[in-house]
Amino acid sequence: MFHTRQTETDKKPAKRTVFIVSDATAITAETLAHSVLTQFSDLEYDQVRIPFIDTPEKAFAAANKINDCYIKTGVRPLVFSTFVDLDIHKAFTERCQGFRIEFFRSFIKEIEQETGLKSAHSMGRSHVIKDEERYNRRIEAINYTLAHDDGQMNKGLNEADVILVGVSRSGKTPTSLFLAMQFGIKAANYPLIPEDFERGELPEVLQGMREKLFGLSIAPERLSQIRNERRPGSRYASIENCREEIEAAENMMRREGIKWLSSTSRSIEEISATIMAELNLHNAHKIE
Amino acid sequence: MFHTRQTETDKKPAKRTVFIVSDATAITAETLAHSVLTQFSDLEYDQVRIPFIDTPEKAFAAANKINDCYIKTGVRPLVFSTFVDLDIHKAFTERCQGFRIEFFRSFIKEIEQETGLKSAHSMGRSHVIKDEERYNRRIEAINYTLAHDDGQMNKGLNEADVILVGVSRSGKTPTSLFLAMQFGIKAANYPLIPEDFERGELPEVLQGMREKLFGLSIAPERLSQIRNERRPGSRYASIENCREEIEAAENMMRREGIKWLSSTSRSIEEISATIMAELNLHNAHKIE
Repeated sequence: MFHTRQTETDKKPAKRTVFIVSDATAITAETLAHSVLTQFSDLEYDQVRIPFIDTPEKAFAAANKINDCYIKTGVRPLVFSTFVDLDIHKAFTERCQGFRIEFFRSFIKEIEQETGLKSAHSMGRSHVIKDEERYNRRIEAINYTLAHDDGQMNKGLNEADVILVGVSRSGKTPTSLFLAMQFGIKAANYPLIPEDFERGELPEVLQGMREKLFGLSIAPERLSQIRNERRPGSRYASIENCREEIEAAENMMRREGIKWLSSTSRSIEEISATIMAELNLHNAHKIE
Repeated sequence: MFHTRQTETDKKPAKRTVFIVSDATAITAETLAHSVLTQFSDLEYDQVRIPFIDTPEKAFAAANKINDCYIKTGVRPLVFSTFVDLDIHKAFTERCQGFRIEFFRSFIKEIEQETGLKSAHSMGRSHVIKDEERYNRRIEAINYTLAHDDGQMNKGLNEADVILVGVSRSGKTPTSLFLAMQFGIKAANYPLIPEDFERGELPEVLQGMREKLFGLSIAPERLSQIRNERRPGSRYASIENCREEIEAAENMMRREGIKWLSSTSRSIEEISATIMAELNLHNAHKIE
């Protein structure tokens, strides 16, 4: 038994340190690194983010930190980087002893060849004016979404790109905020409440806006669990009430011809991407 | 003159169609594509997102759509993809005539070689339990941040990972939401108001939490512009008042030893990454 267990331990791959290095925020590099690493369920790792490496000196220091980790742990660190600036990239690459994956440079070269255009090598600071327009629209969308969360403001509802409807705690708020933050989409949301079901019709303010509506449903068991965290033991959170509300909401959405999905086993990202595809929404920050 | 203008038009590179294709949400692919394309300020393009290509049949259909665009426009489309599933990737690659950049597959292969581990080839659905934990923490952080926006709730403020302080409209709310949504960080925010400056001290509830505080400042001109959109012509929005508030806020942050930055020319991403670096915050969804 002892030997068997030892062998198993020996076979287990060494825990790695994953470094995310960038001359900007490192957020893009981190997102892609996570997507890639998710494919390796047996890989255990600790993550260190090193953003804003925007001079060759900082690049040397970052490389030294990674090399020190290699020496200390005896295991080669995995290094994911996005460097726009070529000199900083070179300074880093020359010194870094980790296993490096650079997400940017090879693609930029390929696109230069395909398009015959020169890239900016400029720290993600080109496109400034377009970026500012896009950026302002994102901030505007966030403000809009916060002001039109949970049906709290009917004024300006006609400016929404999408209005999410569903029972309380079906996932409307985080989805609305993600749509606004990620895509610059003005996403309002409006709760469906027992009074709407009794009346058997959509809230009046929504009736002229059917083409903007998208419904979120959720499994009653999950809804009851979420509501119980808020109001433990309440009628509101009871499985019976959740079943009734969900059934009534789904019936209403079917009857009214509103597209909807169940948020139960979907991430905010999946829900948002589905809504955009179904309603044919495009990024507000699409380059025009 | 006519000839000169024509020559200029001829030299302009053809507008491209950029397709973002994925077997999942396509959000990661889109983020990276935008980062790469930002380096090409002369490139004009329209963007089409094609998410959820999760069968070989859908891959054929997506490739056909891209090929049709190529035929119709006469310009080779740029195609950015992230395919986890090898068969779908192959089906797509065989048929697609666009200029393809695949963000995933080469990296997965390299990491397999470096670590000796096999990847999941499984549509981003591995790590399910860990993902669920992380995911729930993100949702929890979003709810926390919404409840603790703009100083609206003092209860539970000690649970915050960070508390942003600054004058009204200095960028606290979007930054807090981004920290919560992207990193699962519980980010509260608290306004600094003229009464605080008159008293010459931090709001009482913040005084025991100095190590969690981070300040946002902003150029008075920009602040005045933002406030004028909300309350045009008000004393609140006037440049004189904005100057006074900003000066008082910056003095207070210096005196109290609170780290701060100016949000004026920084994106939410840059502000968030800086705060995390300065306060040594790690992703709540870090793999432990």
